[in-house]
Amino acid sequence: MNQQYPSALLEKAVNEFAKLPGIGRKTAMRLVLHLLRQDETTVESFAHALTTLKHEVKYCKVCHNISDTDVCRLCSNPQRDASTICVVENIQDVMAVENTQQFRGLYHVLGGVISPMDGIGPSDLEIESLVKRVEAGGVKEVILALSSTMEGDTTNFYIFRKLAKCNVKLSIIARGISIGDELEYTDEVTLGRSIVNRTPFNGTN
Amino acid sequence: MNQQYPSALLEKAVNEFAKLPGIGRKTAMRLVLHLLRQDETTVESFAHALTTLKHEVKYCKVCHNISDTDVCRLCSNPQRDASTICVVENIQDVMAVENTQQFRGLYHVLGGVISPMDGIGPSDLEIESLVKRVEAGGVKEVILALSSTMEGDTTNFYIFRKLAKCNVKLSIIARGISIGDELEYTDEVTLGRSIVNRTPFNGTN
Repeated sequence: MNQQYPSALLEKAVNEFAKLPGIGRKTAMRLVLHLLRQDETTVESFAHALTTLKHEVKYCKVCHNISDTDVCRLCSNPQRDASTICVVENIQDVMAVENTQQFRGLYHVLGGVISPMDGIGPSDLEIESLVKRVEAGGVKEVILALSSTMEGDTTNFYIFRKLAKCNVKLSIIARGISIGDELEYTDEVTLGRSIVNRTPFNGTN
Repeated sequence: MNQQYPSALLEKAVNEFAKLPGIGRKTAMRLVLHLLRQDETTVESFAHALTTLKHEVKYCKVCHNISDTDVCRLCSNPQRDASTICVVENIQDVMAVENTQQFRGLYHVLGGVISPMDGIGPSDLEIESLVKRVEAGGVKEVILALSSTMEGDTTNFYIFRKLAKCNVKLSIIARGISIGDELEYTDEVTLGRSIVNRTPFNGTN
C-alpha cells in the first residue's frame, strides 16, 4: 500500500533521507519530523554543512585521504615518519589506525579493494599512485592494512606483485585472535592462522 | 579519546548528522561519506529538500496536520465525513490511521500528549482548538486515538472533561489483544481489559 503523505514537501524530504544507506522510510520520517521541530538556523546549518562539504572538500594529493588543503595535515606534518606508508582501504580506516596511536608514518588511501563482483578493478583504485610514491624514493616500508577478506587478500597480492621490483620492505598487519577473545569461540581459520604465524614471546607481548 | 577528523568540513557534516535522534557518530560518518560519493546535484537536492520543507511547510488551520496549503487535503476534501473527528497525537498517527482505510472522517492533531514529566501541559497542545471546533457545531462524534500509555490516558481524560458540556458522542479506539497475538504471551493488563471490554460476537468479527 502506498503511504499518503499529508504534504509533498514532507514526502520529498523523507524520500531524500530514505536514499541514505540503512535508513528506511520510517526512520527517514522520524528524522525529518525531528528537523522540522528544530528552528530554521539549525536546519539551514545542517543543509549548509552538507553542500559546503561537497563543494569544498579536497583529497590529499599525496595519500588521497580527505582533506581541507591540497596536502593533508598528516602528509604535511614533518613529525611523521615519511619512510613508512600504511595502505588502507578508506578514510575511516585512517581514523581507526590513528586512534590506536601506534603508527607515526603516513598513509595511502586506496579508495576501496579489488572486487570483480562489484566491478572494481585495480585501475579504479589508487594503486598506480602508490607505486609511483614508492618509486619516487624515500619509502622504506609499506604496511598493508586492508580488511581480512577475499577482496582484501586479492588487493594485498596485487600490490605485492606491483611492488616486487621496488626495493621496499612489505609487511602486513598481524592477523590472529582478538584481544579478549576466548579460543573456544574463535573460528578455526583465524585460530589456525594465529598458530602458524605465532610470534616469539618476551613475557609481556 | 577524541577522534581526529582529517577534514574540518567532514567533521562539521558528521556533527550535524550526529545531532539527529538515533544517529551515532559512526553512522553519521557512514552517511556523510555516502553523500560525498554522490554527485553534487544529489547532495544539493538533499539539502534543498530540507530547507524548503522548513521554510514552506504549513500546518492545517483546521486539524493542525502538516500541509502544503492553509487547509489540508483531508479537511478540504468534501468526500470526507466532517461530523467525525479522530483525535491523534502526531502526524505519523494520521498516516497510520489513514493506512488502515477504515476511517473516512477528519482528524485533529494534538501535537503531543499531556506529560508533566516532560513539562507538556494542556496549553502546549491543540486541545483548546479541538473544543472550539466541536463547539462550532456539525461534529457528532469525537474518537480518541491516543497511545495506550499513562500520558495518553491522562490526555483522554482531560479531553473527556473539556468536552463533557458539549453535545457530542465521545468514543475511544478499542484496546485488546493484537491480531495474531497468543493469549499465553499477552500481558495481563491488556488481557484483563480485553475481557472486561468484550464485544458481542456475530460470527465474523
